[in-house]
Amino acid sequence: MATVGILGGTGPAGRGVAARLAGAGCTVVLGSRDADRATGIARGLTLRGEGTVEGGTNEDAAACNLVVVATPWDSAVATTSALRQALKGKIVISMVNALSREGREMVALYPSRGSMAAQIAHALPESVIVGAFHHLPAAQMEDLDSELDADVLVFSDDDDARRQVAELIDRVSGLRAVIAGTMSLASPIEAFTAVCISINIRHKTHSYVKMAGL
Amino acid sequence: MATVGILGGTGPAGRGVAARLAGAGCTVVLGSRDADRATGIARGLTLRGEGTVEGGTNEDAAACNLVVVATPWDSAVATTSALRQALKGKIVISMVNALSREGREMVALYPSRGSMAAQIAHALPESVIVGAFHHLPAAQMEDLDSELDADVLVFSDDDDARRQVAELIDRVSGLRAVIAGTMSLASPIEAFTAVCISINIRHKTHSYVKMAGL
Repeated sequence: MATVGILGGTGPAGRGVAARLAGAGCTVVLGSRDADRATGIARGLTLRGEGTVEGGTNEDAAACNLVVVATPWDSAVATTSALRQALKGKIVISMVNALSREGREMVALYPSRGSMAAQIAHALPESVIVGAFHHLPAAQMEDLDSELDADVLVFSDDDDARRQVAELIDRVSGLRAVIAGTMSLASPIEAFTAVCISINIRHKTHSYVKMAGL
Repeated sequence: MATVGILGGTGPAGRGVAARLAGAGCTVVLGSRDADRATGIARGLTLRGEGTVEGGTNEDAAACNLVVVATPWDSAVATTSALRQALKGKIVISMVNALSREGREMVALYPSRGSMAAQIAHALPESVIVGAFHHLPAAQMEDLDSELDADVLVFSDDDDARRQVAELIDRVSGLRAVIAGTMSLASPIEAFTAVCISINIRHKTHSYVKMAGL
């Protein structure tokens, strides 16, 4: 199985993906600017299956075969561009959404290149960017006993990378990969996260997207 | 029950909403620039329940209590602004998405005011704009025998109008209203239609959005 590094992996989004990927048998490195903090958080995760999660620096995470960007949106470009050499030739999965809270809602922000995936793709010209994991409820992702049956919309301009990431996601319990298409869909997929979170704030729940009839 | 006018109602999206609203008991006027064509299309619909659909001009449709904008996106502002007086004081539901086809995908376009709902709101300053019906599969909407169990995300800056539209939608078979929030969510909700259609083109299916866990 793949070794997966998660940049900025100590937040709720990164922890949830780490726990689920470990459940699918992956060896996960939770990267952080603070390796000790990442190690503590990795130890605190409740895991299932044969995979493992260990903490490390973002450099440690970037050394893995496959790398997920789970930093806050406003540090994603700085973090990834500093790791450009380590990420060269690799598939890099962006799960980053540019969002801002306004009262009881999240509002979607539109980065100048159209999406955070496009901003990251520009910062990493020798890497292959795939978008995934945008609409998932973080708390349920981390709780492997929760009943989760969510669709993960996957996009990339690289067909092969998109298929590899979709195959990995389909091995994760509670998730189904749906290949959405190219980077042209990055902006609406990322922005829709604002809708999912706003619905959850308003309705005090943890809902997520299913594509019915597929 | 409400009388509902549908501006530009002869396209697949308008016909589907007309058939479903008639099924819920509404008196529907399918408006078109060509009233004879609208009458022919209205007669061709297979209906259930006590509601009715008749064809007429867009002016006829605009005379109803509640009005849905189902024109192509690039004529929505021209059509609605010409009907500004008739629509004064009414709830106007925008189901308009600005989309363009690129190969096997739809791409989302971003109107300068952020969304088509905002463009229409600006054209109709004395009306109350609500967004709804964006992600629905048109063919299944029109076929009342199809198994449809779709969520309709509803947004507006007017709480009361949003609630009224949600209550109407909840009376329609196959649909559940989910109040998403304010006009701040118009852009990501409209743009996500590009993702839904692109998935359906790619996977040769008619999928639609469900918010699971709600």
